[in-house]
Amino acid sequence: MGIVLGDNQYGKAEVRLVRIDRGAAGHHITDLNVSIALSGDLAETHLSGDNAKVLPTDSQKNTVYAFARDGVGQIEDFALRLARHFVDSQPAIHRARVAIEQYGWTRTLVDGQPASHSFHRTGDGTRTTTVTYDGDTAWVVSGVTELTVLNSTGSEFWGYVKDEYTTLPEATDRILATAVDARWRHRDAGERDWAQSHRQAKAALLAAFADTHSFSLQQTLHAMGSRVLTGQPDVVEVRLALPNKHHFLVDLSPFGLDNPGEVFFAADRPYGLIEGSALREDAPPPGGAW
Amino acid sequence: MGIVLGDNQYGKAEVRLVRIDRGAAGHHITDLNVSIALSGDLAETHLSGDNAKVLPTDSQKNTVYAFARDGVGQIEDFALRLARHFVDSQPAIHRARVAIEQYGWTRTLVDGQPASHSFHRTGDGTRTTTVTYDGDTAWVVSGVTELTVLNSTGSEFWGYVKDEYTTLPEATDRILATAVDARWRHRDAGERDWAQSHRQAKAALLAAFADTHSFSLQQTLHAMGSRVLTGQPDVVEVRLALPNKHHFLVDLSPFGLDNPGEVFFAADRPYGLIEGSALREDAPPPGGAW
Amino acid sequence: MGIVLGDNQYGKAEVRLVRIDRGAAGHHITDLNVSIALSGDLAETHLSGDNAKVLPTDSQKNTVYAFARDGVGQIEDFALRLARHFVDSQPAIHRARVAIEQYGWTRTLVDGQPASHSFHRTGDGTRTTTVTYDGDTAWVVSGVTELTVLNSTGSEFWGYVKDEYTTLPEATDRILATAVDARWRHRDAGERDWAQSHRQAKAALLAAFADTHSFSLQQTLHAMGSRVLTGQPDVVEVRLALPNKHHFLVDLSPFGLDNPGEVFFAADRPYGLIEGSALREDAPPPGGAW
Amino acid sequence: MGIVLGDNQYGKAEVRLVRIDRGAAGHHITDLNVSIALSGDLAETHLSGDNAKVLPTDSQKNTVYAFARDGVGQIEDFALRLARHFVDSQPAIHRARVAIEQYGWTRTLVDGQPASHSFHRTGDGTRTTTVTYDGDTAWVVSGVTELTVLNSTGSEFWGYVKDEYTTLPEATDRILATAVDARWRHRDAGERDWAQSHRQAKAALLAAFADTHSFSLQQTLHAMGSRVLTGQPDVVEVRLALPNKHHFLVDLSPFGLDNPGEVFFAADRPYGLIEGSALREDAPPPGGAW
Repeated sequence: MGIVLGDNQYGKAEVRLVRIDRGAAGHHITDLNVSIALSGDLAETHLSGDNAKVLPTDSQKNTVYAFARDGVGQIEDFALRLARHFVDSQPAIHRARVAIEQYGWTRTLVDGQPASHSFHRTGDGTRTTTVTYDGDTAWVVSGVTELTVLNSTGSEFWGYVKDEYTTLPEATDRILATAVDARWRHRDAGERDWAQSHRQAKAALLAAFADTHSFSLQQTLHAMGSRVLTGQPDVVEVRLALPNKHHFLVDLSPFGLDNPGEVFFAADRPYGLIEGSALREDAPPPGGAW
Repeated sequence: MGIVLGDNQYGKAEVRLVRIDRGAAGHHITDLNVSIALSGDLAETHLSGDNAKVLPTDSQKNTVYAFARDGVGQIEDFALRLARHFVDSQPAIHRARVAIEQYGWTRTLVDGQPASHSFHRTGDGTRTTTVTYDGDTAWVVSGVTELTVLNSTGSEFWGYVKDEYTTLPEATDRILATAVDARWRHRDAGERDWAQSHRQAKAALLAAFADTHSFSLQQTLHAMGSRVLTGQPDVVEVRLALPNKHHFLVDLSPFGLDNPGEVFFAADRPYGLIEGSALREDAPPPGGAW
Repeated sequence: MGIVLGDNQYGKAEVRLVRIDRGAAGHHITDLNVSIALSGDLAETHLSGDNAKVLPTDSQKNTVYAFARDGVGQIEDFALRLARHFVDSQPAIHRARVAIEQYGWTRTLVDGQPASHSFHRTGDGTRTTTVTYDGDTAWVVSGVTELTVLNSTGSEFWGYVKDEYTTLPEATDRILATAVDARWRHRDAGERDWAQSHRQAKAALLAAFADTHSFSLQQTLHAMGSRVLTGQPDVVEVRLALPNKHHFLVDLSPFGLDNPGEVFFAADRPYGLIEGSALREDAPPPGGAW
Repeated sequence: MGIVLGDNQYGKAEVRLVRIDRGAAGHHITDLNVSIALSGDLAETHLSGDNAKVLPTDSQKNTVYAFARDGVGQIEDFALRLARHFVDSQPAIHRARVAIEQYGWTRTLVDGQPASHSFHRTGDGTRTTTVTYDGDTAWVVSGVTELTVLNSTGSEFWGYVKDEYTTLPEATDRILATAVDARWRHRDAGERDWAQSHRQAKAALLAAFADTHSFSLQQTLHAMGSRVLTGQPDVVEVRLALPNKHHFLVDLSPFGLDNPGEVFFAADRPYGLIEGSALREDAPPPGGAW
């Protein structure tokens, strides 16, 4: 009974690219982490070590830097350009997946004026994209990660199952905090204003988190996904992974003190993890998107 | 056009459990990180915040600790016990996935004798399992992560595609280093000696890495997966993710020195990432395994 | 010949405290990581395990939470209050050092208006303080860490020593990037507007980084420290640790492309590390400050 | 009133060096992380950006790799060689500090036999050294970090101060766990068998942790330091930083279960942090050692 080769892919991961655009009115930074995964007719390198169809990951890295010479633009466009290049130029490569993280920078203010060439990192979320291309169709997923949010009220949790291991008291006013990891799938890979789309999606996620009176983090998750869909017809599905970053009210009664929702211990582990998807009824199938 | 709820799951992640077994001949430590993900008839909590079918993640955490009172044993058995409990006791829960990491400890030697109750952490890989149970079938995947290995010779890489972005020189003797992330799927969830199976699989991975003269990391990957399959009939598929941890020979010629394969720079990023699977021709479908 | 006890201290580290102030006009978050180190007449617990003079670290943690019940305010004030408490209430404790990190949050905007109780984390630097109190004098050091900055021009590096191991080409226009770790010592622990002082110091650091035409990171460091001192008479010393986060211009010539200062590889390791201090000629001695 | 330059140093940090020694009987790996800090007559680069006395950190990195061509040997010897080189060859450099971390590797066993050129990483502690040289005297500190240890019994904690914030119950049998960060200072920098010295010191730390019946982590700390001193006359001081990694007994009574010291929650934060030093009465002053 034989052993066969199953699914496989390979590529260069975490290519750190910084591009400076030097405009007359000031410089602009694009700071990226690019990861590539290629698959196709690659059985021989697995089975015999024959690399005749293998484009080295080093060459993939070089391609990222060479393509950046022409400008990077929006990460969705750059990922599309890279993914199409690998599949269209390499006969053995039948699918390329390019994932990019973009770190945020803002101009430093000096005496209230934005500096022309000095920047500092922002920390309110990393912009992401994952583009998949199979030689015919391209799927574009945009996203944001490491966007940490907290509501100091407006969150309840009660009416849940009580089994023999349940000790959690019901809560009618708790802190709700999470680190948003959101990805949204576009209907197609046609041209659009990806930057505007991203700003709008991120604002929708933040607004829905802020103004949903929450009875469960699941409900907040669905509200966030739905808000993105409502605002952008070309987005067909939103996937969210939300760790429930627990904040425990500290019992101060041993010290003769009450604690009316003011003093909390922020725990590291364990945490709840809520994952879900909101999608349009007429969403096309995801294909190779995720 | 409506918005609907897609796939979703929830649970407590990273429950840190340490159990001490206090035998007469010496103590024994079991040090685990347990993560649970449940799915089923959970639409209402997403859509309206009605939690009537939600078992709190806090209760899941309590269950982990309560079950540990009876002993933990092998992580595959403990994960099976937990997964079956959640599905079989909660009508709304139709699938449970329990993932466990086990950290290694060894007895400290004092004057050459193993101490009865003093231990130190080992670092040669974390043992893992992921068990999925749908109320009918259970799938068991075992694994190891963070097992860092290096061959100082016996690795070549040449004969690859040269495109316009290729500058990599061919190598007939290079360092090959990776951090093994391996998972293997068992044919069924029947009783067996999981500890012995794990020892054997890990030894097979290490031996195949060591004695494969490598023409590509893909070839080494396939050899590693195949070695595990060859040794254990009840293992039907092995999935591996191997970062190619590049070690670059330093050019010492500016200092009037040669460098006959001795002095290397170990790079952090970027790295190659090779992912692949080796499976039996007659492997049952993976079902919910991965 | 005997063995004696040398310097020692102990305390609870990384107490994670989140306080919500619930004002009528909106809530306010204070998100802290508090670490305490006490020293004094503690030889017996080291030498014999007699804990009669040891205030448990658990009690120290409780104190942090209990004190937060009255409000936290500025971290320098909170650290002073804690440090004085431990020394003044425990006869055996002769010195307390309290270090606090404060994580930044900003109100989320919904339809352009700040939400009353919804926040997201900012990432442009963590505010810090270290207060030391010996029963008589208190020293206050304020600071900022994880403030990542980059100048896309205005940085040169040439005219340095060339020894037999020097291969670095001189640069008249390079990227200068660092993650600022700055701490500044106040002349005394008297009352002042610590928040305003911190805003001013951080603005001075950013402005000096931005508008110094740099011939070395050392020069920029000194300009940053001096700028803080110039703006605030009560600050007497500024210590800076600046990793030189190298950005290497990618050689695109193998691909027939030039690279006029546009495409860079951002390296992780190694990095330069520049450490220095700027202080007033009449600065009082640091005492136990750092 | 003027601003002056205070203490300062600079250098290349985290130079990752892997050296392969290719002996006939098998290869040998040396895997290091080298950090250099130089100080001296460096005011001008701070004050005016004149780099005439600055040896670039890039040249320092090159020196590490070039010196490795001749062999690395024990990390104390390699650090001494580097430190002396920088001070003795650069007139402006008056002090060099070289810190090295060494990662452990062991030969992989294949069919019970050690492979000649295949290795895997061990995780029971990272060996360290810090050498300081001022042109006249060299101080050598050796150490170990990330050595995680646990005693499952033999640890008590009672008889401590109870203040108004104390709620901790006394314990007569608790888990004691820590991640050892130990550094020990040698009497001089003369030649010796550093490898043997390190093995002996590490064994002493582990043995003292194992066989000390502990009434406080401070007591265990002092026992560990003293054990190293007792075993090696040429070691004059041992400094230890021991986080108290709390393991909390889980209250299983809500589930009708007892918990006779078996089921624990391993907490991340906060943790106690105990720091102390054991030294010989006749220890020479530390000079620039630490």
